[in-house]
Amino acid sequence: MANAMLLPVLLSFLVLPFSAMALTQDFCVADLSLGDTPAGYPCKALVGAGDFYYNGLAVAGNTTNVFKATVTPASVAQFPGVNGLGISAARVDIAVGGIVPPHTHPAATELIFVTQGTIVAAFISSNSNTVYTKTLYKGDIMVFPQGLLHYQYNIGTSPAVLLVAFSGPNPGLQIIALALFANNLPSDVLQKLTYLNDTQIKNFKSTFGGTA
Amino acid sequence: MANAMLLPVLLSFLVLPFSAMALTQDFCVADLSLGDTPAGYPCKALVGAGDFYYNGLAVAGNTTNVFKATVTPASVAQFPGVNGLGISAARVDIAVGGIVPPHTHPAATELIFVTQGTIVAAFISSNSNTVYTKTLYKGDIMVFPQGLLHYQYNIGTSPAVLLVAFSGPNPGLQIIALALFANNLPSDVLQKLTYLNDTQIKNFKSTFGGTA
Amino acid sequence: MANAMLLPVLLSFLVLPFSAMALTQDFCVADLSLGDTPAGYPCKALVGAGDFYYNGLAVAGNTTNVFKATVTPASVAQFPGVNGLGISAARVDIAVGGIVPPHTHPAATELIFVTQGTIVAAFISSNSNTVYTKTLYKGDIMVFPQGLLHYQYNIGTSPAVLLVAFSGPNPGLQIIALALFANNLPSDVLQKLTYLNDTQIKNFKSTFGGTA
Amino acid sequence: MANAMLLPVLLSFLVLPFSAMALTQDFCVADLSLGDTPAGYPCKALVGAGDFYYNGLAVAGNTTNVFKATVTPASVAQFPGVNGLGISAARVDIAVGGIVPPHTHPAATELIFVTQGTIVAAFISSNSNTVYTKTLYKGDIMVFPQGLLHYQYNIGTSPAVLLVAFSGPNPGLQIIALALFANNLPSDVLQKLTYLNDTQIKNFKSTFGGTA
Amino acid sequence: MANAMLLPVLLSFLVLPFSAMALTQDFCVADLSLGDTPAGYPCKALVGAGDFYYNGLAVAGNTTNVFKATVTPASVAQFPGVNGLGISAARVDIAVGGIVPPHTHPAATELIFVTQGTIVAAFISSNSNTVYTKTLYKGDIMVFPQGLLHYQYNIGTSPAVLLVAFSGPNPGLQIIALALFANNLPSDVLQKLTYLNDTQIKNFKSTFGGTA
Amino acid sequence: MANAMLLPVLLSFLVLPFSAMALTQDFCVADLSLGDTPAGYPCKALVGAGDFYYNGLAVAGNTTNVFKATVTPASVAQFPGVNGLGISAARVDIAVGGIVPPHTHPAATELIFVTQGTIVAAFISSNSNTVYTKTLYKGDIMVFPQGLLHYQYNIGTSPAVLLVAFSGPNPGLQIIALALFANNLPSDVLQKLTYLNDTQIKNFKSTFGGTA
Repeated sequence: MANAMLLPVLLSFLVLPFSAMALTQDFCVADLSLGDTPAGYPCKALVGAGDFYYNGLAVAGNTTNVFKATVTPASVAQFPGVNGLGISAARVDIAVGGIVPPHTHPAATELIFVTQGTIVAAFISSNSNTVYTKTLYKGDIMVFPQGLLHYQYNIGTSPAVLLVAFSGPNPGLQIIALALFANNLPSDVLQKLTYLNDTQIKNFKSTFGGTA
Repeated sequence: MANAMLLPVLLSFLVLPFSAMALTQDFCVADLSLGDTPAGYPCKALVGAGDFYYNGLAVAGNTTNVFKATVTPASVAQFPGVNGLGISAARVDIAVGGIVPPHTHPAATELIFVTQGTIVAAFISSNSNTVYTKTLYKGDIMVFPQGLLHYQYNIGTSPAVLLVAFSGPNPGLQIIALALFANNLPSDVLQKLTYLNDTQIKNFKSTFGGTA
Repeated sequence: MANAMLLPVLLSFLVLPFSAMALTQDFCVADLSLGDTPAGYPCKALVGAGDFYYNGLAVAGNTTNVFKATVTPASVAQFPGVNGLGISAARVDIAVGGIVPPHTHPAATELIFVTQGTIVAAFISSNSNTVYTKTLYKGDIMVFPQGLLHYQYNIGTSPAVLLVAFSGPNPGLQIIALALFANNLPSDVLQKLTYLNDTQIKNFKSTFGGTA
Repeated sequence: MANAMLLPVLLSFLVLPFSAMALTQDFCVADLSLGDTPAGYPCKALVGAGDFYYNGLAVAGNTTNVFKATVTPASVAQFPGVNGLGISAARVDIAVGGIVPPHTHPAATELIFVTQGTIVAAFISSNSNTVYTKTLYKGDIMVFPQGLLHYQYNIGTSPAVLLVAFSGPNPGLQIIALALFANNLPSDVLQKLTYLNDTQIKNFKSTFGGTA
Repeated sequence: MANAMLLPVLLSFLVLPFSAMALTQDFCVADLSLGDTPAGYPCKALVGAGDFYYNGLAVAGNTTNVFKATVTPASVAQFPGVNGLGISAARVDIAVGGIVPPHTHPAATELIFVTQGTIVAAFISSNSNTVYTKTLYKGDIMVFPQGLLHYQYNIGTSPAVLLVAFSGPNPGLQIIALALFANNLPSDVLQKLTYLNDTQIKNFKSTFGGTA
Repeated sequence: MANAMLLPVLLSFLVLPFSAMALTQDFCVADLSLGDTPAGYPCKALVGAGDFYYNGLAVAGNTTNVFKATVTPASVAQFPGVNGLGISAARVDIAVGGIVPPHTHPAATELIFVTQGTIVAAFISSNSNTVYTKTLYKGDIMVFPQGLLHYQYNIGTSPAVLLVAFSGPNPGLQIIALALFANNLPSDVLQKLTYLNDTQIKNFKSTFGGTA
């Protein structure tokens, strides 16, 4: 039955439904040159395999900073192929003694794969402020429910690496210390917000890059 | 540890991830000058605190009309900051003897806060046409499930004010009397639709602003 | 109470809220001339009743092809009124002896109404590869859950017609045989993928319009 | 390579991943004996092909009533296989001179296929009360956006049949005339709501089965 | 045409479709005695108008505490009628000099109506830590996008009252100070997380009710 | 201001809102002993940190099978903490010469991290059967849009390991070869479906564990 004689007939079949379906949306790679919408970026017109691929997580991030840790994102801005697909990625490097301090992702759940090192990871429930904490070794995975405060720190003697998946193409990252101290919030407001005094606040502002 | 000496190192840390994340979408204030999409308006490029604020509900609406009531919306058209956020607002003023006649919101659940006066509010289930009705006093709240027919009327001796929240940025408002009689539907069609006669229909059309 | 004297007052009422609500989105007919977004096409500015209507399913599709069957879509590309509404349609014609071979719709559940003829329809669960199969007669309906492999074939002595509804405006259609053999996948790759030999693969490529 | 000798090895492969995946949810047929949840009914434990099939739309509904029309639903209550799948169906029969009077579906968009007869179908936008109306013939389809008031009536000389798909498993059906007059709403309240007088209201209540 | 003689015919019409549709879900009031699901609580079997009504926000909350402020929730736990409807409410009382300290709602956008007093309200973007801040007077509204850190404080000379709507029935409330200090997190971990020293941490733990 | 004297006042504050909010849903760990719902499993009552952690992906799966590859899932069935969170995980081991043959995930987008080895990965669009293919090395990531046919095979000289994230807690896995040949579909039906002859089909059934 599989017979080349059928080819002419078949091609007329193929041409018709596929021209008719030419606007089918299997995916929507972000055209970052256009403005965003609530559901993501408009779709890029010409797409190739490279749009669904990213190699920016292959190398370690630079951990020479106050936290001894860094996050390398593969969100829609870096990896336009995830636009509209409900998922994105990141890599976290934590040097010995380093920490990803308390933070939230306003728009996504996070799932981590530990691929190197030993860490403590925890999140805090909004219900009674309960802390859910685990020591994680190479190969372990953990999930941090959407929007909840969480943190990770290296307790081992070698660098730790986490591969991270988010349940959205654009999870956001709000580090509490930076949200409070790495901007121009006046000291008198910060005293109300944090119950710290002026000296402590100025010190934190200095550390985290805020302006007086 | 909080030490200004760390600042240079830290800034290199800060600059890298934040430039990388510069396209993060925490919100998407509507750019009403562009066309709409199924998920809302494209995002405005330059945004300030004023975009998330609206004062159009601070003053009473004009109730000098046949219903002795009016709805002042704070939908995405008036309050672009709610675009894509799954919520919007309105204010309802109902004069003594006034009514918000039977209507639906095609795309949202409604929740009301009674801040002045005494009203009767009710909705009607599509299941057996059951009426769920309550007398509400200042401070009471009530919820009207999405798409169901509902109404409110003032039973007190002073004006009533409702603050309203909707479970979407663009709830729509379909007042049945106006949907039927405030347009150009011909009398013979309306007779079929309403079981009213030509005289009654012309009277309603005249009242509600329809054309013959 | 329905009184034409109220008209002037009422009109002032009508004008205010309706101009205020002029951007309400009851629907979003696709403007196919603009690019797509993850939530569908931007909304067309001027809309009429014709945008919500389509007559392209009224006539039988051409079944003179290798499958003796054809699918006539009424997706957003053909029927822009369904944009953003979570639904679309199609018509399937299956000649005597014809088949809609195993395929999936990546982005929608399918529900069929049999309006002519007698068919076998089935889907295969990803759980244990269980086959759910039924013989369907005129008037019967069946549902195929999103993303699962399914097929239909005519077992009667006259043409069969299915009217199809999808749970999305753009369901996609991936026919496995065409996905594998109607493109430029090299024979050595296809041998890995299908456990067929080079001769069989070349035969299929020839039948389904693939290139060597 | 396709070789029965590989079977023992393969089976060990098959057993492992499939027992591990035994709880995969490809579908969730409603167990109507259990209570509902906001996302639909809990899933039935034992499922067969018959759960995805329904023949209740194969025969005409009884149109011997005041509307000369009837709706035969295939919602989750009649067709448990659609539970959780974002789609359901119905059949509408409209005798000569019959009408499906103004109604809404609070939780779904409607798409109709006209399979017999000639009808007028229309919906009314919440934006300016614009009426979108079309005459539909056999084979035509039309879509009614979620939550908007719409109606259909037979303008032909033979019965009309519509096959209907909804963008949800449980669309609801709220016929305005019945919502107002087929229950126990008191006449004095209805006078406020409808601008009709007591005599007219009692007449409608009598017609539509309401109680005084 | 509205004629009581039609009643017997009509009733047969009414009975059939409504018994058939008896399981239609217009709403799903939470049965809090049953366990939760990801989409909310199972639906209560017997429902009345009172289920859609709540008076718990009518009276001021007690602000005699360290923050001089309190939040009175009308989430699904207090107001079961909002289950599954994508909305809920709260009342916030802020005494003179009081503050609702930096917090997030992991699962909802917040919209506030200021009904008494004068406050400063602000949220902080995860993008560059930008602060969006406004002074709000009686009648003003403001929206805080989902998951972002925000706060409000009274800058007036009289108590402030906010009525709050959330874009979900169960928004959660995570106050950063309590999430860190009102539980059993050890001081050595908190030193890593907060860059505070042991004395400062013990002081905060004592203030916010944490255990050593 | 941080002062232990405030503790008694504070505790009364803490107790009230937190008992009131005791039903807040931050997460919903699956209680697998109960039946499923369309939105996932009912929530487990007592939850600990271990519910959000899984170590089942730490060790390599057994690749001694016809595909020389295996998938180790961390779906809701193995990792109940992901219930309702829109994400899950898996590990794929592919021995030298091994392949994950063409398959779909009916309910999720897939994102892979290559952590060992070198593979070819590809997906096929439903639009024109276009193949999007890439060679991936250690550290590379790739995304496969929801529902589309895709495959991966090892082209290196050592085993390959992929860590996988899915955009849903229960992605499903439908391997086409097994869906067609690893069940009880009769040979005459399979001849229609696959254009293979009886001998070829019996061979495949034998290979893939189907019954005659």
